[in-house]
Amino acid sequence: MIRRIPVSKTIATGQRRLYSSVKPSDKGTVQTVDYQSNMDIPPNSTMFSLIQPTNRFHIGNYLGTIKIWRDLANNPNVPASGSKLIFGLADLHALTSPKDPKQFKNARLEAVASIIASGIDPKQAILFSQSAIPEHCELYWLLCCLTGMGQLNRMTQWKAKSQVSGSTETSVFEPEVLKKAYAGVFMYPVLQAADILLYRSTHVPVGDDQTQHLELTRTICESFNKTYKNYNFPQPKTILAPTKKVLSLRDPTKKMSKSDPDQNSCIYITEDAKTIQKKIRKAVTDSIDGGYYFDPVNRPGVSNLLNVVSGLQNCHVDEIVKDINDVKKLQNHKELKDYVSEAIIEGLKSCKTTFAQLMEDKSYLEAVIKEGNDQAREIASKNMKQIKTAVGLN
Amino acid sequence: MIRRIPVSKTIATGQRRLYSSVKPSDKGTVQTVDYQSNMDIPPNSTMFSLIQPTNRFHIGNYLGTIKIWRDLANNPNVPASGSKLIFGLADLHALTSPKDPKQFKNARLEAVASIIASGIDPKQAILFSQSAIPEHCELYWLLCCLTGMGQLNRMTQWKAKSQVSGSTETSVFEPEVLKKAYAGVFMYPVLQAADILLYRSTHVPVGDDQTQHLELTRTICESFNKTYKNYNFPQPKTILAPTKKVLSLRDPTKKMSKSDPDQNSCIYITEDAKTIQKKIRKAVTDSIDGGYYFDPVNRPGVSNLLNVVSGLQNCHVDEIVKDINDVKKLQNHKELKDYVSEAIIEGLKSCKTTFAQLMEDKSYLEAVIKEGNDQAREIASKNMKQIKTAVGLN
Repeated sequence: MIRRIPVSKTIATGQRRLYSSVKPSDKGTVQTVDYQSNMDIPPNSTMFSLIQPTNRFHIGNYLGTIKIWRDLANNPNVPASGSKLIFGLADLHALTSPKDPKQFKNARLEAVASIIASGIDPKQAILFSQSAIPEHCELYWLLCCLTGMGQLNRMTQWKAKSQVSGSTETSVFEPEVLKKAYAGVFMYPVLQAADILLYRSTHVPVGDDQTQHLELTRTICESFNKTYKNYNFPQPKTILAPTKKVLSLRDPTKKMSKSDPDQNSCIYITEDAKTIQKKIRKAVTDSIDGGYYFDPVNRPGVSNLLNVVSGLQNCHVDEIVKDINDVKKLQNHKELKDYVSEAIIEGLKSCKTTFAQLMEDKSYLEAVIKEGNDQAREIASKNMKQIKTAVGLN
Repeated sequence: MIRRIPVSKTIATGQRRLYSSVKPSDKGTVQTVDYQSNMDIPPNSTMFSLIQPTNRFHIGNYLGTIKIWRDLANNPNVPASGSKLIFGLADLHALTSPKDPKQFKNARLEAVASIIASGIDPKQAILFSQSAIPEHCELYWLLCCLTGMGQLNRMTQWKAKSQVSGSTETSVFEPEVLKKAYAGVFMYPVLQAADILLYRSTHVPVGDDQTQHLELTRTICESFNKTYKNYNFPQPKTILAPTKKVLSLRDPTKKMSKSDPDQNSCIYITEDAKTIQKKIRKAVTDSIDGGYYFDPVNRPGVSNLLNVVSGLQNCHVDEIVKDINDVKKLQNHKELKDYVSEAIIEGLKSCKTTFAQLMEDKSYLEAVIKEGNDQAREIASKNMKQIKTAVGLN
């Protein structure tokens, strides 16, 4: 049932602009590594990924990040090959928009609970908090000194977050933009590069909106290796989430977001069956008759639902389309929405209960993070010591 | 003999542009604190300053930074008032241009030797290495998230270092500049703010080219205190070096610099008497007859020499002018240059010998830094723990 999604198909679904800055020589490293087998992952690899701890996750976070973590953690070949899985909370990145301190603490616990509830056993992977490991910021500064301003200014996420739609290179530095944009948002991908390189990561599972940042990580990595010839970071490869970006149920031109004022736009992984059914019933679709097909441009609402089902069922969207039209022979939007609701409820069925149980036992969650922090710190401090020696700081 | 230099006079000597971004409400904090008495320094103050460890220091570094450190360390009132002196090597800042690792290690030892040779007793002040204290970088990231891109883009040093002479706000972000400028140079003042705030510093002695960065530190400090109301950094005050920027002896339109290819432009604090005499003899002056006076615009070479003597002798340049014309009655440039050489040789007399002795005992220098690092770390980790709690990371 599980098939590898070729990279050309993933790019073809509207994400081509993300690859615009990829140099020809780098293109080979943007690939969907087949994480369901150990074919593409050699022994002694380090798979690394962080997620911002913003309370419970929605199905966009789940399909874009957490589900790959789970699939990697549950791949029986991964631990046997001597590979490490290092996953964690990007709580420093989260502070690019300051948080209420108390709510932020709780958000981190909910995030850990969500990760475990999604099926990741803390025994299989290191689960840690970025802010507990000071070496992330130490390496961040060193990499700041090797990262070009022009490289950062080309980042699509920076352009989007500084709320400028212009596409020219200098447009984001107009006085009006500079007035309201913060340096943390601009420097975001450099801290990401530090996160990844600190653990000498070889493979990084990411959602499609982060592939450009990972390209930049490779550029920074190359720059470090060239500048300080007595140290050599491995070039981290992209493991691209096979599911494309999950969109708002109420406005499928926007990304699904927790902060959307219309909460019907967003399904959380801990949602109960009734709420899932209600939200899917209210999902915006279209009035095109005569069968269902995947066409994100002309049928964004329907395609978004098909994409979600495809992600949850680990199969290509074409197979979902075939199942809907040829096997289930769904006749109308109501039947389609029931089908989608059922797939989501089935895909997330154990999350809700496990999440609730975990949130009853906060000391367990804290112990998980503490143990993860200790393990991460051991690797980070050993690597950072060598990095400092390489740049002349020891 | 020692007089406080009023701020208006210091600004009047050509540095006004540095204050252009000062908001009216902030102007009161830009002041030359009278560090020779404890009048302006209340009990329990923390005086903090770092210098880049670039081997031996020249008289520009000495008069702009190290001499104030020495004067503060030797002020008998400072330790008695429960105040702390924390001085150190900005070795992370130095990496904005990558160094040869071996040479960099030696440069740091020479810098420590130069500081001690300048008359700073490590028992009176904490002498430490910025890179040994990971909390600097941790706070740096937190402050990145609170620093406006526009604020950084207005920094005169950034404009100068990114080699753009334009004065408009966006000029430094033209594609040609972005291509060659590094983020470390742009973010430099944010790491400086982290250095200062981490120790809850109340007073920061700086050379006049750093006053704008210290203004930005106050803005960032205010921003942190407003955002995270459960923590309050003290607003650090500027202790402005009374000596204005020391210029190249061979081209007094440029700052004195170690990296100048013409080494006659630069006098090191460990230079022997003969070399000092030779370099001063070769110093560019002018062909104006009839007495010596201080006029940096029309007589930059002569004024630069008068400025150096004034700094070394701890008195106002007017007193030097009076001494030259009315007491010594110097008649020509040769006599002036002999007078200047003598003042420099006298001012630096013990540096050379002490420096050489210290460089024979590297284990002593390493022990000094280790002890300083331990003391700095104790303060930094205690403060950072509270800061992390305030932002919700503990």
